[in-house]
Amino acid sequence: MALPSPGSTDRTRVRRLGEKAVTDRDVLHRVLDAALVAHVAVSDDQGRPYVLPVAYARDGDRVLIHGSTGSRLFRSLAAGAPTCLTVTLLDGLVVARSAFESSMNYRSAMVFGVCEVLDGDAKTTALDTLTDHLLPGRRAELRAHKAKELAATLVLALPLDETSVKISAGHPDDDADDLDTPIWAGTVPLGETFYDPIPAPDLRFELPVPEYVRTWRR
Amino acid sequence: MALPSPGSTDRTRVRRLGEKAVTDRDVLHRVLDAALVAHVAVSDDQGRPYVLPVAYARDGDRVLIHGSTGSRLFRSLAAGAPTCLTVTLLDGLVVARSAFESSMNYRSAMVFGVCEVLDGDAKTTALDTLTDHLLPGRRAELRAHKAKELAATLVLALPLDETSVKISAGHPDDDADDLDTPIWAGTVPLGETFYDPIPAPDLRFELPVPEYVRTWRR
Repeated sequence: MALPSPGSTDRTRVRRLGEKAVTDRDVLHRVLDAALVAHVAVSDDQGRPYVLPVAYARDGDRVLIHGSTGSRLFRSLAAGAPTCLTVTLLDGLVVARSAFESSMNYRSAMVFGVCEVLDGDAKTTALDTLTDHLLPGRRAELRAHKAKELAATLVLALPLDETSVKISAGHPDDDADDLDTPIWAGTVPLGETFYDPIPAPDLRFELPVPEYVRTWRR
Repeated sequence: MALPSPGSTDRTRVRRLGEKAVTDRDVLHRVLDAALVAHVAVSDDQGRPYVLPVAYARDGDRVLIHGSTGSRLFRSLAAGAPTCLTVTLLDGLVVARSAFESSMNYRSAMVFGVCEVLDGDAKTTALDTLTDHLLPGRRAELRAHKAKELAATLVLALPLDETSVKISAGHPDDDADDLDTPIWAGTVPLGETFYDPIPAPDLRFELPVPEYVRTWRR
């Protein structure tokens, strides 16, 4: 059954796999908070889309992204191009008794809209929020942004007004006809692993790996 | 330095982070072969992009995708909408001495173009190639596709004619000014983990987990 999500419009109403649509805004937030990279698209003037991976952070009811002032994607977004920002977490492979029913378990969030350009204090605060999302604890150790760094960076906010979330979880849903076939079926769970931090070769001080880096997990 | 990739046009010439551009077609193939999910975009008639996660397989010099005939994305692609298919593998967090230089290590491939609809034997063969990519070894155990399954599925091929690959790897590249700051810097490698397979609760036979499922890795 397809249910419109709180911020849904005709565009975001889930038409396929409607039973996988989730309407709870908390679920949207949890999906956005669980990942590190979003895929962000804009179209050129001939309607040809571009999709690029971008680090992001959720900040309340908006998503923050940042990029170079030299980036075509970010210049286009800053100029008001409509965008779609999609976050996908792959949770497993669903090994069904037929190719047709085999699939993936995943959590995916889509956000549609137009970005707002952040400047001044809002820009600096948003950059700090991005650092907090990507590596909580790091910000307290970092020096302030330099003016030339801020000048070279576009910081954009995309409101969570028009959104869609899909979650696919669980076991294969095979046709009754296929259940008597003696073939293994099940799932293979997937997850992201964080390996031991590797110190930079040009470290000039004997510094332990900070606790917030050692224990960083999603 | 920005170098055009073999299939590059003005659209795919890497303008930012040019030093991360890789031109070798083998590298493109390796990136495409290493992932399970691509993000695929189309634009609507108002130039608004949509980005959705899609399972895919590389087949020589093209990428294969499949989806429901009821999917707006797949119907649009089948009707000839220009698309961008992007695959991203996140390899690590780069923890630099400044927020500005902090970044991600990743491998990303973009493919631009228009899909071809596959029918008949080409369609069946492409579905088998998809199964082989997603779970090598599975195909030999599966029954043939049913006519109604084939009828409900669109299978599309996107040629690797216009492509772009970016690879970001290695340690932070901090400003010389920042190297004397006593703050830890380095990388946190990330990777996908494949957990133990979980048998479906409705298995009617005592079947061991097949070798090709137990040992499945990317």
